[in-house]
Order: sequence, then C-alpha cells, then structure tokens
Amino acid sequence: MGSGPDGIRPIIGPEYIKVVSMAFLLPNDDAPVIWRGPLKMGAIRQFLEEVNWGDLDYLLVDLPPGTGDESLSILQLLPEMDGVIIVTIPSEVSQAVVKKAVTFARKMNVPILGIVENMSGMPCPHCGEIIEVFSKGGGAKVSDEMDVELLGSIPLDPQVAADSDEGVPFIVKHPGSPAVEAFIQIIKKIEKKVP
Amino acid sequence: MGSGPDGIRPIIGPEYIKVVSMAFLLPNDDAPVIWRGPLKMGAIRQFLEEVNWGDLDYLLVDLPPGTGDESLSILQLLPEMDGVIIVTIPSEVSQAVVKKAVTFARKMNVPILGIVENMSGMPCPHCGEIIEVFSKGGGAKVSDEMDVELLGSIPLDPQVAADSDEGVPFIVKHPGSPAVEAFIQIIKKIEKKVP
Repeated sequence: MGSGPDGIRPIIGPEYIKVVSMAFLLPNDDAPVIWRGPLKMGAIRQFLEEVNWGDLDYLLVDLPPGTGDESLSILQLLPEMDGVIIVTIPSEVSQAVVKKAVTFARKMNVPILGIVENMSGMPCPHCGEIIEVFSKGGGAKVSDEMDVELLGSIPLDPQVAADSDEGVPFIVKHPGSPAVEAFIQIIKKIEKKVP
Repeated sequence: MGSGPDGIRPIIGPEYIKVVSMAFLLPNDDAPVIWRGPLKMGAIRQFLEEVNWGDLDYLLVDLPPGTGDESLSILQLLPEMDGVIIVTIPSEVSQAVVKKAVTFARKMNVPILGIVENMSGMPCPHCGEIIEVFSKGGGAKVSDEMDVELLGSIPLDPQVAADSDEGVPFIVKHPGSPAVEAFIQIIKKIEKKVP
C-alpha cells in the first residue's frame, strides 16, 4: 500500500482484488491498534474516502462479529449500501448473535442479502466421513425464524487455514473443491441480487 | 439474574460458577446491543461495581478478540488484575493477532499468564486420525517468538458445540475426554501462578 497525489493506493491481490487493511499501515506485525471507537471511525472514513479505489464492481467490508462501533460506523458512512451479508457457524448458540445482527440491520434500514453458514460439515480428510465440528442446521433454522434467505452452506476444509498460512487464497489453490463450489453458488446468488 | 438492595445477583451455573452477561439483561434474544464504546464501558463498570459477587476465587472476564474498547476498559478499570490469558487457534495467520495482544498487555503493564492454543488437532470421531482443522504449531511458535509461556493446547472436539447447543457445559458432560484433560492441566498451571 502506498499513497500519491491521487490518494492511497490499495494493494492488488489475486484476481485483481484491491485490498486495504489497517495491518498494512502498522510499523510491524506486533504493533497493536489500541483505539477506541472515534479513532476507528476516522480510519474507516479514510479508507472509504481517501483510497483511490478506481472503478469497482463491488466494495466488500469485512466486519468483526457483533453490532459495535465498526458496524455502526460503516452503516452510517454508507447509508445507501446495497446490503449486508451475515455469516454464521452452524451451532445454535451462535444463532443468538445472528438474530441480533438481523435486527440491527433492519433497525438501520439496510437490506439483508442473506445468511451464509460457514464451517459446516467437514469430510474427514482420512476416511471421508462427515464431521459436524460446530454442530449443524443452525443456518437453516435462523433463516426460517428470521425470514432471511440462506444463501448457502460452506463446508469446513482444513486446507483453508493451511493455504492462508502459505499466503495463497484457498479458492485459487483448490478450485473445484466442495467448499469453493459452495462459495461460487453463493456468489452467483449475490450477483443476481446486486447486479 | 435479578437485583435487590445488596446489588445485582449473578446467575449461578454448574460448579457454583457465578455469571453475568449483557445477554441476561436484554428483553429477548433478537435484541442487539447497538452501543458505541462509552456505553459499553459503563456496562462493564456496572458489572464490576454493582454486581454482588460475594467471595470469589477468581474473576474471569471473557473479552472479544482484538485490542479495542472492551479490552482497554477492563484494563483501565482493573489496573491491579493478576494477569491476562491469551487464547489463539493454531494457524499462523492468527499469530499476528496474538502478537498484538501480547504487545498491548505489555504496554498496559499487565502480567501475561500465558497463551492457550484452542481448537488444536482433532481426532476424527469416525476413524480416529488427527485432523489439523486450523493448521498447527502456531501456539508454540508465537510463545517462542514473544517469550510467553504456552499453557497448553486444547484439541478441537465437536462435542463442545453439540453440548453447548444442549445447554450443558462440555466439561460436565464429557469428563475424562482429552480436551477436558488438557483444560484441567492448563487450570493447574494458572492456579500455581495466581494462588
């Protein structure tokens, strides 16, 4: 990441995805960002206003869990966004968090594009049997209870963490895997909703 | 949870563990807590000051990931705490977050009791082979690089999520399991450090 007279230049990753992150601005990877909300909101505003994004098909903001400062800031700074995607794991316990996020988006009048169930049933790499590592069925249940579309379920795959540790996106290194296929089906649904 | 002339009464769970949580104060489980930092700090202060904790062996505060408002508030409200325990998953990517947390605690002059590696290698419930779901070795590596003791590694066990969905603590339902044994060894180390 660098900056010039035309603004902050994002990093360009695989598939020409442009990325900015606080992590790129820190002096080293030990340095914590000990910021309360107002400073965080300032940084988010800068990322939106001062980065030279150029033409984008989509701007995707990856937020921390919950309904705190970061989510509030983004929804206030981008009131006309196309929508939010809520990501959950299959367990029932995590459904309470999802319900809160749905209510939060509705209160803020932001469309909900759907729910994605991540870390769903994982085929054992040794014997192939499915393991429900984080319980199961929660995505469908909360989709039903809150009347929000379930966009899909992405199976948990140990290669995601392994590839990330190598610095290679899983989707680039393992095309055709069930998790990547599930991912692509979800993307197609989102593209239809946000052309 | 209720309140009386002697303060807010915590919920009492298994093994006589007293618990308070914002979740107990909400009208229903859909209701989000749309709060910026100052309101959060107020709630944390109330939980520390106005809850009738009685005699406690330990007060454990479970914080969200990162070095944001909640962590800052707790460290400022409890400057003489015995220490922090940093929990991570085994992947290298998550080590950046751990290093930030270590630097954060050191800057705030709070002792670090150690690092716990959670969600380590999981034996497949079908064939028994170990699966490194979230990569491996990160806990030991960061412990070495940051000179902080690794208190232990807790194997990932699908029963943790399943038991939680049933509302029964894993440690109560599955005593003797490898994850519970790892947990107990970690507790013993912490008890030695904080008698």
